[in-house]
Amino acid sequence: MGSHYRNWMVDLGAEFGPEDITGRVAELVADSGIRTGSVTVGLAGSTGAVTTIEYEPGALQDLRRAVDGVVPANDDYAHNARWGDGNGFSHVRSALLKTSLSIPVIEGRLYLGTWQQVVVINFDNRPRKREVGAVVVGD
Amino acid sequence: MGSHYRNWMVDLGAEFGPEDITGRVAELVADSGIRTGSVTVGLAGSTGAVTTIEYEPGALQDLRRAVDGVVPANDDYAHNARWGDGNGFSHVRSALLKTSLSIPVIEGRLYLGTWQQVVVINFDNRPRKREVGAVVVGD
Amino acid sequence: MGSHYRNWMVDLGAEFGPEDITGRVAELVADSGIRTGSVTVGLAGSTGAVTTIEYEPGALQDLRRAVDGVVPANDDYAHNARWGDGNGFSHVRSALLKTSLSIPVIEGRLYLGTWQQVVVINFDNRPRKREVGAVVVGD
Repeated sequence: MGSHYRNWMVDLGAEFGPEDITGRVAELVADSGIRTGSVTVGLAGSTGAVTTIEYEPGALQDLRRAVDGVVPANDDYAHNARWGDGNGFSHVRSALLKTSLSIPVIEGRLYLGTWQQVVVINFDNRPRKREVGAVVVGD
Repeated sequence: MGSHYRNWMVDLGAEFGPEDITGRVAELVADSGIRTGSVTVGLAGSTGAVTTIEYEPGALQDLRRAVDGVVPANDDYAHNARWGDGNGFSHVRSALLKTSLSIPVIEGRLYLGTWQQVVVINFDNRPRKREVGAVVVGD
Repeated sequence: MGSHYRNWMVDLGAEFGPEDITGRVAELVADSGIRTGSVTVGLAGSTGAVTTIEYEPGALQDLRRAVDGVVPANDDYAHNARWGDGNGFSHVRSALLKTSLSIPVIEGRLYLGTWQQVVVINFDNRPRKREVGAVVVGD
């Protein structure tokens, strides 16, 4: 039984800035030697998200359009009225998608489909260097 | 301290094909003997989801309608234009709802309400046999 | 290696009743002595949610408006037609946002940003006293 972590600084674009971190998370799991457990991935910050998707430009564009439809960047937000930083939409997107997730580790591997990648997304209204961490627990 | 897993093949319908897996997850937890921990449930694949809901036809129909409203099946998707497989909406729905979740295990039981079930959903545009796995970690 | 839990009864308002529980979760982590692991937070019930957000009135108001837009309280729901309890919208909101999340614990601390709080929300159509639990696992 054990637990192991890694964390990284990841450069992400503005408004909907994605990056595939599957390789980093899979390497943590492989190096840990854990066969049965779970890995929790989190982005530290209230204007980003972690999810899974087939990491190809079409699906990312489709996700971006859906997110824009529910929480448009060009709208009035009470957060902006208070703080004047213009990223009210980023906070709402982040709270809806959430900044972390956990994935089973079974037989030493991330329990994901072939076309399923772990992706971090920055929703802030400017490019951000985000702290991303992952912890695997199990034995 | 220990970790235990089970996985299953689950037959699910097209577009919004749900199944209640609470019994399977609860059985894993009970058989593990773990009293304090967490269980992580994941569907392997980029066109499904795992969430909790009161598993009755009305609430499922309402959830389906909300999902259809945000990400309609009958719309144009960039993923479809590239890959021609017609399931662009499925990928977006999956990325928004996510394919996994974790639930606390307290006093040997899944920490859920009486009317709260763990449900896997297939959003693909055809029925799918999906791999679903769960891992409980704790002691 | 170990696992530790706490649970609480939390009084929450109707329709969109939030409370910041970051302090409670951070205290559990600190008292556990766990340096590397993950903490899973869950609300027991099918009409609430757990997420993270900058806990200030503006961002909460913006999140509420987005949730209302996708799943309006004043609409017809099949759940209501069957059960007559009027909280069909609450179930859908809960299934979309989910009632639990996990956060990495790295170097003994919750892996969150400075302006990122853990929040429980009640979506039910009446104020509710909700059971909320958290388990930290690691070493």
